[in-house]
Amino acid sequence: MKIDGKAYRTIWLAPDGWSVEIIDQTRLPHELVIASLKSAGDAARAILSMQVRGAPLIGATAAYGMAMAIREDASDEAIDRAIAHLAKQRLTAINLRWALKEMRRAVQNLPRTERVAAAYRRAAEICDEDVETCRRIGEHGLQTIKEIAAKKKPGERVEVLTHCNAGWLACVDWGTATSPIYQAHNAGIPVHVWVDETRPRNQGASLTAYELGGHGVPHTIVVDNAGGHLMQHGDVDLVIVGTDRVVANGDVANKIGTYLKALAAKDNDVPFYVALPHSTIDWTVDRGSEIPIEKRSSDEILKMPGRLPDGSVVTVEIAAPGSPASNPAFDVTPARLVTGFITERGVCSASHQGLLSLYPERRETK
Amino acid sequence: MKIDGKAYRTIWLAPDGWSVEIIDQTRLPHELVIASLKSAGDAARAILSMQVRGAPLIGATAAYGMAMAIREDASDEAIDRAIAHLAKQRLTAINLRWALKEMRRAVQNLPRTERVAAAYRRAAEICDEDVETCRRIGEHGLQTIKEIAAKKKPGERVEVLTHCNAGWLACVDWGTATSPIYQAHNAGIPVHVWVDETRPRNQGASLTAYELGGHGVPHTIVVDNAGGHLMQHGDVDLVIVGTDRVVANGDVANKIGTYLKALAAKDNDVPFYVALPHSTIDWTVDRGSEIPIEKRSSDEILKMPGRLPDGSVVTVEIAAPGSPASNPAFDVTPARLVTGFITERGVCSASHQGLLSLYPERRETK
Repeated sequence: MKIDGKAYRTIWLAPDGWSVEIIDQTRLPHELVIASLKSAGDAARAILSMQVRGAPLIGATAAYGMAMAIREDASDEAIDRAIAHLAKQRLTAINLRWALKEMRRAVQNLPRTERVAAAYRRAAEICDEDVETCRRIGEHGLQTIKEIAAKKKPGERVEVLTHCNAGWLACVDWGTATSPIYQAHNAGIPVHVWVDETRPRNQGASLTAYELGGHGVPHTIVVDNAGGHLMQHGDVDLVIVGTDRVVANGDVANKIGTYLKALAAKDNDVPFYVALPHSTIDWTVDRGSEIPIEKRSSDEILKMPGRLPDGSVVTVEIAAPGSPASNPAFDVTPARLVTGFITERGVCSASHQGLLSLYPERRETK
Repeated sequence: MKIDGKAYRTIWLAPDGWSVEIIDQTRLPHELVIASLKSAGDAARAILSMQVRGAPLIGATAAYGMAMAIREDASDEAIDRAIAHLAKQRLTAINLRWALKEMRRAVQNLPRTERVAAAYRRAAEICDEDVETCRRIGEHGLQTIKEIAAKKKPGERVEVLTHCNAGWLACVDWGTATSPIYQAHNAGIPVHVWVDETRPRNQGASLTAYELGGHGVPHTIVVDNAGGHLMQHGDVDLVIVGTDRVVANGDVANKIGTYLKALAAKDNDVPFYVALPHSTIDWTVDRGSEIPIEKRSSDEILKMPGRLPDGSVVTVEIAAPGSPASNPAFDVTPARLVTGFITERGVCSASHQGLLSLYPERRETK
């Protein structure tokens, strides 16, 4: 997508043909900084420090990290070491481990002299496949937006609410929840996005608002508290969110607060869609209540980074001194509150049957 | 209530017998600063700058402002001028206008020589009446907490969630939503409070956490997004919130986000109570959809005050530069989601019939 008129991906091969460049997401939204990764160690640090974040982008970065490791030393031992090192940077990131496995498979039966080229080829494919998956999610979601737009008066905007950042900054391009929005915008359908701030890490106000603004999509930041009120007043036509994990019965784990928006959508007859690639479906877990919920540092609640008037970025303490905080990072939205899933294969109901209708090859696994 | 072991009210007569002292709430939670008000002008500025906030406290401050005005000049003309000046500081504060009317009534038929003493007497009464009203709300709410405590295993805490600050800092003492909590704590019932941060102004993380901590009540700050997750996991026994306005059918206007918590409470069979004094009931409005909702500055969302490590307080910009924000300050929770009202006269259902059962003298007004 674009930032101020220039097209970007979140990760790309540098002009030297072997190192990679990324958008340093720890500096967003305050400044656009391009960082250079020149080794597997750089890639590991970028993943750990969250210069790159979002499951698909973490996978893509790990893939290029492996390519750079193999360029330095293409031995089986070196490959094993690089995989072990990269894998431990984010323990819960499924895409990270998937990408590392893919990279091993791409090179393991090749002579050492052919491994470098094969590794770079597979890393590039992993990026392109993610872009294509997200593009297709957008294509299917676009149909839903078009149906809503068709019922609007000429010039009236389709009002979408989203939570957290399931945008192109979390992927290689397009994003998941944002992909239908970008495609609608690119197709000339007037669309406006209510961007949930998404406390405590403010991914909405910082990342989603940044990327929508950069691409020129009309949007408005609201606090997480406001979504119900907006829906009560008919100001939201549909909700689209991403997800960290969809389980076999259609329950959805996503950023804390998603469940509250789903309740409000149900109470006000607003369609609530979850956009996801097939890799986010966890067929091994039966229902949402079995998903372990990560608890993160209370500092994310008690402290806040921001810009001073001189442009410097500082972190301030915002709460009553000495008061403790608890920080569950995700919640589970029951399938009964979800209108549908938007995947790269189409739209289905949020149920085991719905998922199987799009992924029939999974029928025998349960 | 106490701050670090010392009992406070939010406003009190100074040792000189005529000026008043307040807790400067613009400095909370970062530091406890006592401010001195020595004239009606000081009182007006304290109201406008939100050194005092919360409907009952604004009323009490205006009352003492009138007493100080009359001490300077007890003429009818001076009284009219002081009332006009104080009334315009917060246009939507019903208690402000009520307190000014009370003060006029207290002095208007007296000779000038008796007006000063009468004004100070009535101002003290207005404060004491508020304390007594809040104390009774707490007494009635305490019964509900006791019933929950009775079903707990010995030592198990009663888990209360609250939103925003309906605490003693918004009143003269006790608070509304917090009064049952303080009374339970004072009575030795183990109680723990989940404090919603309450974006965008963070009254929960700053004021509610500050006052609970000061009084020694166990509490934990959570982001507004977390309440639904806590309820799904059985971590909340009851919700108690305050309200800015309850209308004739029992619909409740309160801080933005209250509606989302009421939806989650309903979905998880958690009792959801609203604590209020009779003065908050607006019998002239039939239903919540008729309540106008104040939109406040987007700066409340885009900027955040906080402490730097050196203790100084600064304001930082926290969102994507250039992204707009929308800031509806309140939402309306439909009566169907409210388990009951806790008032100074007892507990009733959230309905016109319920309200009339406690305030039968209102039967003829509709």
